[in-house]
Amino acid sequence: MNINGRHYRTIWLGADGWSVEVIDQTKLPHRFETIALRTVEDAARAIKTMQVRGAPLIGATAAYGLALAMRADPSDAGLDRAIPFLAAQRPTAVNLRWALEEMRRVLAPLPSAERTAAAYARAVQICDEDVESCRRIGDNGLALIKEVAARKKPGEPVNILTHCNAGWIACVDWGTATAPIYRAHDAGIPVHVWVDETRPRNQGASLTAFELGAHGVPHTIIVDNAGGHYMQHGQVDLCIVGTDRVTRNGDVANKIGTYLKALAAKDNGVPFYVALPHTTIDWRLDDGRRIEIEERPADEVLKMTGRLPDGSVATVEIAAPGSPAANPAFDVTPARLVTGFITERGVCPASEAGLLGLYPEQRRAG
Amino acid sequence: MNINGRHYRTIWLGADGWSVEVIDQTKLPHRFETIALRTVEDAARAIKTMQVRGAPLIGATAAYGLALAMRADPSDAGLDRAIPFLAAQRPTAVNLRWALEEMRRVLAPLPSAERTAAAYARAVQICDEDVESCRRIGDNGLALIKEVAARKKPGEPVNILTHCNAGWIACVDWGTATAPIYRAHDAGIPVHVWVDETRPRNQGASLTAFELGAHGVPHTIIVDNAGGHYMQHGQVDLCIVGTDRVTRNGDVANKIGTYLKALAAKDNGVPFYVALPHTTIDWRLDDGRRIEIEERPADEVLKMTGRLPDGSVATVEIAAPGSPAANPAFDVTPARLVTGFITERGVCPASEAGLLGLYPEQRRAG
Repeated sequence: MNINGRHYRTIWLGADGWSVEVIDQTKLPHRFETIALRTVEDAARAIKTMQVRGAPLIGATAAYGLALAMRADPSDAGLDRAIPFLAAQRPTAVNLRWALEEMRRVLAPLPSAERTAAAYARAVQICDEDVESCRRIGDNGLALIKEVAARKKPGEPVNILTHCNAGWIACVDWGTATAPIYRAHDAGIPVHVWVDETRPRNQGASLTAFELGAHGVPHTIIVDNAGGHYMQHGQVDLCIVGTDRVTRNGDVANKIGTYLKALAAKDNGVPFYVALPHTTIDWRLDDGRRIEIEERPADEVLKMTGRLPDGSVATVEIAAPGSPAANPAFDVTPARLVTGFITERGVCPASEAGLLGLYPEQRRAG
Repeated sequence: MNINGRHYRTIWLGADGWSVEVIDQTKLPHRFETIALRTVEDAARAIKTMQVRGAPLIGATAAYGLALAMRADPSDAGLDRAIPFLAAQRPTAVNLRWALEEMRRVLAPLPSAERTAAAYARAVQICDEDVESCRRIGDNGLALIKEVAARKKPGEPVNILTHCNAGWIACVDWGTATAPIYRAHDAGIPVHVWVDETRPRNQGASLTAFELGAHGVPHTIIVDNAGGHYMQHGQVDLCIVGTDRVTRNGDVANKIGTYLKALAAKDNGVPFYVALPHTTIDWRLDDGRRIEIEERPADEVLKMTGRLPDGSVATVEIAAPGSPAANPAFDVTPARLVTGFITERGVCPASEAGLLGLYPEQRRAG
C-alpha cells in the first residue's frame, strides 16, 4: 500500500540483490524507518523485537531469514541450526513454523550449492503468495461489507471494528482484516473503522490508524474498553480481526483482548469475522486450549512511548512506581463466538467442517 | 488509609476551618500533592478536571462545594445558582445529584444566616457516612472472600479482578470495591488483585495500584485486554468493581470496559460483584439505557502522561498523527451479568427485587 504516495511492501530485497529490507515497525507511527537484514541473526532479532510483526509477515521474514542463513552456511548442519533458531523467536504465530517447514521441504533435498538460490526464490514466492492470498481475502470479505452496505441509507458508512493490526503492515501487502476494508473503500463504499488502540503495544493506534490514515480510510481510535459500548449502541456493523493461529476446530488465537470483543459481538448480535490465509491454520492442533501463549515483558505495560511537544520520541513510566505487571500477548477466542473465517478460498463457518469444506486436502485419512 | 505511614482521607477541612483540602488525583501516581478548594468554582473545577473522581468522592466534594458557595452567598439565589452549577460538572455519577439534593433538603428551609454552618455540618456528616458505608461494604464483601478462601489450599491467594479505581481514593476512605479486599488482607486472608490499568485515564495502574501498593496488598497490573484470558484460565476467583450509577432494575454504569469484564465473568462462571453505597442508586431511572454517558476529550486517548528517566513528568502523543479518537467514559453493564451488589446493608441480587429487599423504604406506593 502507499506511504507518502509511494507504494511499499513490508519486506523486499535490497538493491544489492541479497540483503532484506523491512519497515522498522517499532518506530511507527513516530518515525518511518527501514532497516536492512544481512544475517539470520538480524532476521531473528527483527522478529523477536517486533521490528516485524503480524503472523504473515513473521512467516515471510523467517523465509528470508533462512535464505540469509543459507548464504552463510548452506550445509545440512546450517539448515538444522537455522530452522529451530528462527522458530524459537515467537511462539504463537503458526505462520512462522509453516514458513520454516515449507523452506525445509524445498531446501533439504537439494545439494548445498543450490540451496541459497532456491531459498531466495521460495522466499520471494512466499511473499507473492501472501499478497495474492490477502487480495483474495479482500475480495471475499468485500462481499460481506457489500451486504451490510445494501441495508444502509445512501452515504451511511458501514462501521467496522478491528483489534490490533492485521493490516498490510502485518502482512506483505493488503493485510488480512484490512483487505476487505481497503477493497470496499477503493470501490466507493463508505466505511468507517473503529480502531481498538490495542494495549499494551498499541498496534491499533500506532499501526492500523497509521495505515488507514495513509490510505485515506475514515477511522476513529478508541480504547480497548470502548468497543462493547459501541456494539451495545448499534454503532458497530461488523467486526473483522486477524489471527496468529487457528486450530482445527476453529478456535482463534489473536492479540490479547480479541476474546472480549468476540463476547461483546455475540451479546449484541454483531457478526464477528476472522480473516486469515491458509498459512495461519494449525491443522495439527485440535483445539485452542493447547496454543502456547507468549508472555512478554512487563515494561510493555508499565511504559509508553510517544512524541514530546518538541517532536522527539520519549518513553515514560505510566504506572504506580513499584507495582508489577503481567503481559500475556494473546488470548484464544472459542470458535463458538466466531461468525466465520474469511480466507483466500472463501468464507466458511468457524469449525473443522467449515475449514475442511474450503481445504479438503486437510481431511485426515479415515 | 495510609500513604507513607500517615493516615489520610481524600477530603478534609483545612487548618483554617473553612477551606477544603483534597488530594490532587491528576498528579498520581507521579506526585502526591494536595490542593485547597476555597470557592465553589474551585470545587467545580476539581470535579470537572478529575482532581477528585470516584462517585462517592464526587458527591462529598459537591457537598463541601456547596458549603463554600454558602459562605460566599447563602441567599436562596445563591443556593439556586450553586446547585445546578455543581451538578453540571459530571453527568454520570448519581452521587453528585444525591449529595446536592440532600444539601438542598437540609439548607432550603433554613434562614440564610444559618446555612453556611449547616452546610459544613452536613458535608462533614456526608463524609463520615460514606466512610461508615464503605466500612460496612467491606464487612459484607469480606464474607464473600472468606467463602472463596475456604475452598483454597492453605496459603493460596484469592484472586480478585477489579476495573478502574473504586478504592479509598474514589471515596472518603476504605473504598467500595477495595473495602472487602483491605478487610481480607488485614484479616490475614491471602489476596491478590488483578488491576485493570483502565484506559484511557489509567485509574487502575495509577490509583488502584498506588493505593494497594501503599497498603501492602499483593497485586499485578494488567492491560484491560487481559482479564478475559485470566478468567478463561481459572486465575480469577472473583470480580469486584465499583459503579457510578445503579438503576432501579440493577443495571450498572461504571468505567468504560466494565461491561466487557462482566461478559467474560459470565462466560467463565466467575462471580461478578458490584460494590456500592446507597447514594449510588438512582431509584428514579428504571433501567440503564437512559443513563447519560459522558464523552470526554480525545486527548485522553491520544496522549499519555508519565515519568521520564530523570523523574520529571511529561505527556507524550502516542497515536498515529492526525487520527481522531472517541472517548466515552462509561458503559452500562446489564443486571443479568451481575452476580450481586455489595452494599452497606448487605449483599443482594442485581434486580429491583434484590435492591428493594435491602432498601424497602424505596418501594413505590402501590
